[in-house]
Amino acid sequence: MKFKLVIAYDGTPFAGWQVQPNGRTIQEEIEKALFQVMGKELKIVGAGRTDAKVHARGQVAHLILEAPPPPSFQKSLNALTPNEISILSIEPVNEDFHARFSAKEKLYVYHVTSDPVQLPFDQNYSLHYTYPLSFNLMKEAIPHLIGKHDFSAFANQSFLFEEGKNPVKTLFAIDIAPHPSGFSLLFRGDGFLYKMVRNLTGLLLDIGRGKIPPSEAKRILLSKDRKQAPSAAPPHGLTLHSISY
Amino acid sequence: MKFKLVIAYDGTPFAGWQVQPNGRTIQEEIEKALFQVMGKELKIVGAGRTDAKVHARGQVAHLILEAPPPPSFQKSLNALTPNEISILSIEPVNEDFHARFSAKEKLYVYHVTSDPVQLPFDQNYSLHYTYPLSFNLMKEAIPHLIGKHDFSAFANQSFLFEEGKNPVKTLFAIDIAPHPSGFSLLFRGDGFLYKMVRNLTGLLLDIGRGKIPPSEAKRILLSKDRKQAPSAAPPHGLTLHSISY
Repeated sequence: MKFKLVIAYDGTPFAGWQVQPNGRTIQEEIEKALFQVMGKELKIVGAGRTDAKVHARGQVAHLILEAPPPPSFQKSLNALTPNEISILSIEPVNEDFHARFSAKEKLYVYHVTSDPVQLPFDQNYSLHYTYPLSFNLMKEAIPHLIGKHDFSAFANQSFLFEEGKNPVKTLFAIDIAPHPSGFSLLFRGDGFLYKMVRNLTGLLLDIGRGKIPPSEAKRILLSKDRKQAPSAAPPHGLTLHSISY
Repeated sequence: MKFKLVIAYDGTPFAGWQVQPNGRTIQEEIEKALFQVMGKELKIVGAGRTDAKVHARGQVAHLILEAPPPPSFQKSLNALTPNEISILSIEPVNEDFHARFSAKEKLYVYHVTSDPVQLPFDQNYSLHYTYPLSFNLMKEAIPHLIGKHDFSAFANQSFLFEEGKNPVKTLFAIDIAPHPSGFSLLFRGDGFLYKMVRNLTGLLLDIGRGKIPPSEAKRILLSKDRKQAPSAAPPHGLTLHSISY
């Protein structure tokens, strides 16, 4: 029996999603709780990894169980995982469902606050960025970035060559959503390379600030060279908002 | 020279606003930073105390300085206070300004989330309350509570008799603001007794849940007896939003 889990987490205290030798990870904490509830080692497969300090409101993972889960399965998992992790739902899915390969669209949101002093509530969830920005310059650059492209210029190279990963992705849209204390950048695509959203955000901030002209977005994309693009925006502003199947 | 400070804080790690023998307090942390910047012991006077785990987006305090503050006074204080405290502004005010006595209106907001599983981001800032609630029942009770009344029934007694505090306050409005994952209760008044907002929230939740009929709000208020009112809602859902002068 296959199950789809929708998971929210505050990434602040974790070394990211994926199990790794050093540091607590979200996947590891959920698998530890699964072991306590099911009495055996079980693996979950996530839709994608998120880095240390990156948050999620709708990360998705799948899980295969040989026997039906106990009643209150979700409640037990939520009781056993740290407060920073919430299993929002668990539902049975078809055998051909795969958290990563079945995903049709992912929405990542990058939050920026630009008030002179950042509220303490935003410090772990929004980049505090007080340089004046022109949304018009940023909007000029966006059409160069959306569509189906080889996004190697915005991907961490070491990951790119792992598992022969395909660097061609389709970015459906980038929207700027202003709010009273700043703005959010919404990225919708069929998939994202490692650090791609943070690298695109870093570029858009430099463009908005006037450091790089909007037309450079096209040249950098076409170069397929990570060294051409500005540095990545910091992780804590990023949230994996939702995944559509 | 008198200064008005507007202060935001995440109340989670603090034992409340007011300096006390046990536990870190917000007032104490700001006074420690003031000592480091000004080289002498200085006291700030807050508009009101907030309890342990209660938050603020616009707490106000005043401060008297004998000499003009150094340049970057605000920046220095923000660098020296814990991350959970942000001094949003510091501005000179007239000698007759008093953070508490000059306040005309305070707005407190009590946040409630009612989704089956609470997002980790909300856990320290919203009450997770999943009982079905009728806003109509709550709205029926509100007219009994607003206006100028002796609010002793909603005040912690031990505080009430300190300093001969007047239990008569004017509650201008209570509004219910629904949002996708729950709702917020907005309390506007000329002042609030100790635990008054949390006690009113506890009553409104019991009324919305159908445990107490809306008309009981009037009887409880007129009784002036704290024992007649239900228990206070927990502190972490409460935020002192703003104070008008």
